[in-house]
Amino acid sequence: MGSPRRLLLLSSSSLHGGGYLEHCQQHIQSFLGQKVKRVLFIPYALHDRDAYARTAREKFESLGYGLDSIHESCDPVEAIRKSEAIFIGGGNTFRLLKALYDNNLIHEIRKRVLEDGIPYIGSSAGSNVATISINTTNDMPIVYPPSLQALGLVPFNINPHYLDPDIKRTHMGGLREGTMLLVEGDKATLQGATGARLFLRGKKPTEHEPGTDFSFLLTDSNPLNP
Amino acid sequence: MGSPRRLLLLSSSSLHGGGYLEHCQQHIQSFLGQKVKRVLFIPYALHDRDAYARTAREKFESLGYGLDSIHESCDPVEAIRKSEAIFIGGGNTFRLLKALYDNNLIHEIRKRVLEDGIPYIGSSAGSNVATISINTTNDMPIVYPPSLQALGLVPFNINPHYLDPDIKRTHMGGLREGTMLLVEGDKATLQGATGARLFLRGKKPTEHEPGTDFSFLLTDSNPLNP
Repeated sequence: MGSPRRLLLLSSSSLHGGGYLEHCQQHIQSFLGQKVKRVLFIPYALHDRDAYARTAREKFESLGYGLDSIHESCDPVEAIRKSEAIFIGGGNTFRLLKALYDNNLIHEIRKRVLEDGIPYIGSSAGSNVATISINTTNDMPIVYPPSLQALGLVPFNINPHYLDPDIKRTHMGGLREGTMLLVEGDKATLQGATGARLFLRGKKPTEHEPGTDFSFLLTDSNPLNP
Repeated sequence: MGSPRRLLLLSSSSLHGGGYLEHCQQHIQSFLGQKVKRVLFIPYALHDRDAYARTAREKFESLGYGLDSIHESCDPVEAIRKSEAIFIGGGNTFRLLKALYDNNLIHEIRKRVLEDGIPYIGSSAGSNVATISINTTNDMPIVYPPSLQALGLVPFNINPHYLDPDIKRTHMGGLREGTMLLVEGDKATLQGATGARLFLRGKKPTEHEPGTDFSFLLTDSNPLNP
């Protein structure tokens, strides 16, 4: 039986100077649905966690969801255990991944998403850490995480904010600003407005329009989840 | 007594589509002078070391210097020990730094440059690894080096190919394409055509023209060399 995983991976948290999560708010609402009441926010990718949590809380409350920020919890692992849905925001990918390791959250987030099937929303760095590794980030390595391996919720890499045509990685997707990837179990669909570019080892990169079925990417072997 | 170090740190190996090391060949010749006969090349930043060594050899031979590539040596540490001058070329900074660690070259290069005073030329990634750390690289982390600490030949960071006005680091220099930094003992001078931007913690970034004396940057404490 496949994993009950459900992920919404956003390239970015805003588009063309629009408001925070404005370009994707309908996707977020239809993804979380009515059953989820509260979202657990992980603000580790930015330095000012309080300010970041305020921004995220304001947005999610406007969409009808309560928001708890994990940095306000005295037991982050327990906060993951009790969460109904997880949202990891963008910022610096190295800072984010290091904090996930430092707080021992990798295993528990994997369990909640891959086994229990709670919804996971990632934006930018939060989408990057959902993949097998952060090898395809464009961020500066401002801190040194104990590994580049990430949550491994999907068995491929993503380069959020994809711009550059000259990227050397051999198996990853480039998500342009405004693009998002919806993963439900063994089904993956490209959403949003701007499309994406797919890089497979030994093949020419290919362009994909919103609506593309990317489920075949989920069947590849995942080094973290053999 | 200060270190006899001599470094020529290039932002990039070419400029505006010009030939390999063409924009800085006179700087290289006057930096190496007549006493140096052979340069030891470190091609670790690129995947195809043979091809990279061919390109570098052709250029240095045209300038009147022999070139040995360290990847052709069966004992890289010994190659450093015997070298008259070192040139580390650009490519991926993570790949380069990892190979320097994997081949146990960090200590020996530091000794040759900081104590013995042999000339060190770095280009792009080769300039980045000459600093205290690679925290300011724009490259993708395609491999995981055992540390982000680098050679520490100078006590500050450099961001080669500097473009972006929005960099968050607090103490580093941005070297634009075409810019180079000449370090001789306790004296550092900006060279080349395009100038540089200096970031100091807690201060506004400042613009600097070619010819600027950056020696004050060398007096800061170096965490690798207290």
